Amino acid sequence: MYIVSKIADEECNVDTVSLSLDEVYQLSVRVLTSNGMADDHARAIARVITAGQRDECHSHGIYRLLVCVRSLRDGKLVGDAKPQISELSPAIVRVDAGFGYSQLAFEVGSKILVEKARKIGIAALVINNCFHFSALWPEVEAIAEQGLAALAMTPSHSWVAPAGGTKPVFGTNPIAFAWPRPGKFPFVFDFATSAIARGDIELHRRAGKDIPLGWAVDEAGQPTTNPAAALKGAMLTFGGHKGSALSAMVELLAGPLLGDLTSLESQKFDEGVGATPCHGELVLAFNPETFAAGKQADGERFAEAMFDAIVGQGARLPSQRRFEARVRSETKGVQVSAQLYSDVQALIRG
Amino acid sequence: MYIVSKIADEECNVDTVSLSLDEVYQLSVRVLTSNGMADDHARAIARVITAGQRDECHSHGIYRLLVCVRSLRDGKLVGDAKPQISELSPAIVRVDAGFGYSQLAFEVGSKILVEKARKIGIAALVINNCFHFSALWPEVEAIAEQGLAALAMTPSHSWVAPAGGTKPVFGTNPIAFAWPRPGKFPFVFDFATSAIARGDIELHRRAGKDIPLGWAVDEAGQPTTNPAAALKGAMLTFGGHKGSALSAMVELLAGPLLGDLTSLESQKFDEGVGATPCHGELVLAFNPETFAAGKQADGERFAEAMFDAIVGQGARLPSQRRFEARVRSETKGVQVSAQLYSDVQALIRG
Repeated sequence: MYIVSKIADEECNVDTVSLSLDEVYQLSVRVLTSNGMADDHARAIARVITAGQRDECHSHGIYRLLVCVRSLRDGKLVGDAKPQISELSPAIVRVDAGFGYSQLAFEVGSKILVEKARKIGIAALVINNCFHFSALWPEVEAIAEQGLAALAMTPSHSWVAPAGGTKPVFGTNPIAFAWPRPGKFPFVFDFATSAIARGDIELHRRAGKDIPLGWAVDEAGQPTTNPAAALKGAMLTFGGHKGSALSAMVELLAGPLLGDLTSLESQKFDEGVGATPCHGELVLAFNPETFAAGKQADGERFAEAMFDAIVGQGARLPSQRRFEARVRSETKGVQVSAQLYSDVQALIRG
Repeated sequence: MYIVSKIADEECNVDTVSLSLDEVYQLSVRVLTSNGMADDHARAIARVITAGQRDECHSHGIYRLLVCVRSLRDGKLVGDAKPQISELSPAIVRVDAGFGYSQLAFEVGSKILVEKARKIGIAALVINNCFHFSALWPEVEAIAEQGLAALAMTPSHSWVAPAGGTKPVFGTNPIAFAWPRPGKFPFVFDFATSAIARGDIELHRRAGKDIPLGWAVDEAGQPTTNPAAALKGAMLTFGGHKGSALSAMVELLAGPLLGDLTSLESQKFDEGVGATPCHGELVLAFNPETFAAGKQADGERFAEAMFDAIVGQGARLPSQRRFEARVRSETKGVQVSAQLYSDVQALIRG
């Protein structure tokens, strides 16, 4: 079905497959729909999977299809959930994802979020009852493309101990932010408030490698370099008590504020299945034109002077590696391991 | 004028002075007004100084009167600025502080902020052109007392290097958050995104003590334990590249978004005087009743279960030391060093 070119030049190993971005997208849609996912959900998820593969965030590329299909087959996930939109106020739009994946809920809700923020300067998108596996940068970047700043956060499952403790309470609780830069890639960051992503500990376990001290404690609460012991124990937050405080804020703003689950409650809801976390998400949009009250040009100038002062001393802005990969992928396509490609193709039914 | 009791019991050294909270407040008002500050500004500042002394945040207690009076006598500060309120939208109120201190601008603006957030669920307070020296916790706590969650941030002066760099770009850029807990002290944090407060490096310098590695680099960009070299070089952010990204977000949301200065620009505005930074501030308020759409009770229950899981394992919530001090101070008053008390009294004119 797909034109797959095995490249034999010096850029690639023989065991990789080269795909165009459209091929990644079409493959993703086919895998998901052939496993019973509704077409609108499949397309929304395929868009973020393609973006992940494009930016060489491999854990958010087509690898995720394996996880999605397992959830479709085994989990509580509703593959054809209809997102229900309600306007909570002139500043807040809520989308009940109905226990489907978050992406379609974000797509339909973010259009209204952007309209609201354009009109009154600040607005919030509340997503409730969604299964959430994707990075947050595609979402804040989509809002920044509309000329708005954006802040997004979600809880996950309770894997991370609070500062001063050794038992899991928090999720890995990502927080992402984007600031629009006319004619340039936005300023974007998207990081877990845990010291490291849970997937990185998993990768170390599979590779039989130790993890650094500071990532986790074991079940007895002792610092550990053993990834298996870490996964049974508790991960730690980044930045000590400050990172821990920030992680608690993510829980509160993207959980209880929205009447939705904390990571502890999401873990309970999972009932030991080990599925993708199910909870809420909060996205805020800020319109500089409204906030700056006539001084938006000054604001842009000050922001660019700050970026210049960072880059000018040889430091990097966040997300630059992703943007470099994006430029490459958009002209040359992406490389996927032949094994992964074969595993993904094997998911196609019918 | 003030009833000062020298306590001689075992709780105090002979060189401290015991003051009631009202005495702290009255002393603060008198010092400020006798140095030409308008009465409304003096009372607003005296309230936060009293709160700082009460919570045993000594660097934000009556010690600050020394700094305020110096700024009144020498700086660009306008001691009788009239805060100008404008409504930028149904969701945003702006207060132009007119190059006065921030506290009065916050007091007049936050009343409208709370009204707006009550009405449409989320609202923003923009303060422009303010001199800012106070902690942010009194502000987010004041909003949490109204049953709302609050998030506040400001830049400062460019003292802090970005991750991967060695030259100052960011301010110490505090970020503060409060979550209301019915019948209890709120969940509150207020931290600098620098590894440590600048005042702590200053205290080490005065005491002739080394600072730990990781706080700062010297002018040549080398890690240093010498506080004087650190103050001439650049401070570092907490939490590596994540703390650095967060610090950049504080700059953008509390500076350029508001058409106001970054820490780099605030430093330029200072023209080498070394005065209190002058810039903007952003405060957001969130109404759980609106956001939770009928599930506020669930949200409160999930939040309290999370706090129980933290405290139940022997970890502490942020701000507990302050709250313990507050309970003490409200019954027993506060202890101030006799030297500081004498220095502060000497500021009174006329």
